Amino acid sequence: MATLLVAGGAGFIGSHFIDRLIARGDQVICVDDLSTGTREHTEMHADQPRYRFVEADVCDGGIEAAVRGSGSMRFDAVVHLASPASPPAYLARPIETLEVGSRGTHNLLEIARLDSARFLLASTSEVYGDPLVHPQVETYTGNVNPIGERSVYDEAKRFAEAITMAYARTYGLDVRIARIFNTYGPRMRADDGRVVTNFVYQALAGDPLTIFGDGSQTRSFCYVDDEVAGLLALLGGDEPGPVNIGNPHEVTIRAFAELVIELTNSRSTIEFCELPADDPHLRQPDITLAREALGWEPLVTLRDGLQRTIAAYRTSSLG
Amino acid sequence: MATLLVAGGAGFIGSHFIDRLIARGDQVICVDDLSTGTREHTEMHADQPRYRFVEADVCDGGIEAAVRGSGSMRFDAVVHLASPASPPAYLARPIETLEVGSRGTHNLLEIARLDSARFLLASTSEVYGDPLVHPQVETYTGNVNPIGERSVYDEAKRFAEAITMAYARTYGLDVRIARIFNTYGPRMRADDGRVVTNFVYQALAGDPLTIFGDGSQTRSFCYVDDEVAGLLALLGGDEPGPVNIGNPHEVTIRAFAELVIELTNSRSTIEFCELPADDPHLRQPDITLAREALGWEPLVTLRDGLQRTIAAYRTSSLG
Repeated sequence: MATLLVAGGAGFIGSHFIDRLIARGDQVICVDDLSTGTREHTEMHADQPRYRFVEADVCDGGIEAAVRGSGSMRFDAVVHLASPASPPAYLARPIETLEVGSRGTHNLLEIARLDSARFLLASTSEVYGDPLVHPQVETYTGNVNPIGERSVYDEAKRFAEAITMAYARTYGLDVRIARIFNTYGPRMRADDGRVVTNFVYQALAGDPLTIFGDGSQTRSFCYVDDEVAGLLALLGGDEPGPVNIGNPHEVTIRAFAELVIELTNSRSTIEFCELPADDPHLRQPDITLAREALGWEPLVTLRDGLQRTIAAYRTSSLG
Repeated sequence: MATLLVAGGAGFIGSHFIDRLIARGDQVICVDDLSTGTREHTEMHADQPRYRFVEADVCDGGIEAAVRGSGSMRFDAVVHLASPASPPAYLARPIETLEVGSRGTHNLLEIARLDSARFLLASTSEVYGDPLVHPQVETYTGNVNPIGERSVYDEAKRFAEAITMAYARTYGLDVRIARIFNTYGPRMRADDGRVVTNFVYQALAGDPLTIFGDGSQTRSFCYVDDEVAGLLALLGGDEPGPVNIGNPHEVTIRAFAELVIELTNSRSTIEFCELPADDPHLRQPDITLAREALGWEPLVTLRDGLQRTIAAYRTSSLG
């Protein structure tokens, strides 16, 4: 049994990740400021004896004392999943997003350093920006506009990778970096603003599905159970990364919209809107490294994962 | 007369920049922690009635009170030139370099926001990394390895640009971003570790000039008087940038070494060493934007600038 600090554990991926840790008997301290995380995602673990929730911002100077608590708890691993992650969420919180990637990462790295703990950074496919190399391999340096609107997220995550590697080089910290690609599943916020939630809720309501651009842009969606299994394989293995953790099955947004309409038996139509600035046209992980170094690959098809997601959304506002 | 806060004003470019501000009658508060800046560079202004020096780290929480001083001074402009800037300097201070680009920039932006001051960020050609587009135009998104050794500087500056733009978008802050290319001249530290100082000191001492790689990589060197004139044009003009401020005259490192040997009348030979990781192969600014928007271009030839630099180095350890 290990003791883990999970920052952002009340978020979509964080809450599924903690499910798995608890199921295998780990002790989990979850820290989240609930700015985009959801109180229900921490309350559902509240009866677990090996779970403690700390409502705090990882950017705060007092974060170390807050997460250690009165028992001065020490951690075997620090997992940094904290950040607004959908474009509407981070564009609404530009300075906070830059802060959690920089100061928040720094604060969490310090805790890991003091405890000689393993540190896992959740980075993102957004470090590749609007990629000119396809599919994206980890050595690709990306096409991010540092002064674009989305740079508040992209550059924050690139900075987070840089400071994580600086801690590895300077202090010998044992680090892991995951580059998470689009992930979907139950418990995404209805107001998340990402395409999966938008489409599913629009289809369930019978509203038109809104496509930004002409729908020819592609995405590769990873079911959350697969994503979490990849993160756990990275955390438990020897490969420091960065490792792409995502599903390489690529689909156009238009085909995806049509699949959602089919699986929901919806009467919804499709509407086309203007594409936002710096929206990536193509996004598909090369997961050769994850397959070879972690023995991991996604197992859930888009059709299966979407059916599970739709079923969850039908029965609960949070899925 | 304006009141300016100049962070990093005891550095190489900062001290020349302050010379010009004082000469035109501005009031200058210089803040520098002297980690790579030089005490002599601030002492030489010490008898100026309109100059005040604050020895402090811009990353500190108390920096605002420190720079305002007992008179609660307000600023018309905040100029952020603070950072280790040569590869040996920032590689020796990886975490500090990341901090001054993130937390330091944030602290200075806050001061500018509170005063409704203009904010000038000294960014760098390093945001282009090892560029695949040549010469580099401001819209090029760069080729920076986020996990490479040099990312502590490159990603810190990209982050600084992103948070500067976030302040412009969020608060309407009046910002200017300069991307500074290689600059040389009197007052560079002898131990700076950059090629100009290395070569000139090696040539003056009669030691071999050490070239990393085969010397075919190019650089474009801007004389410091030109660089400062460009920064002042940016600060005083309407173009927010980013604007490349550098000299587009490109020279191979090998030809540059030979010119240094010629101008110093040195007996030095040339030695070749292994190229460090992520060293850019080509670096040359496209300065069309600076010419058109600022009416600025460099005026000092490499031969003239080097002669002035060599003369200064012959008479003083600091030039």
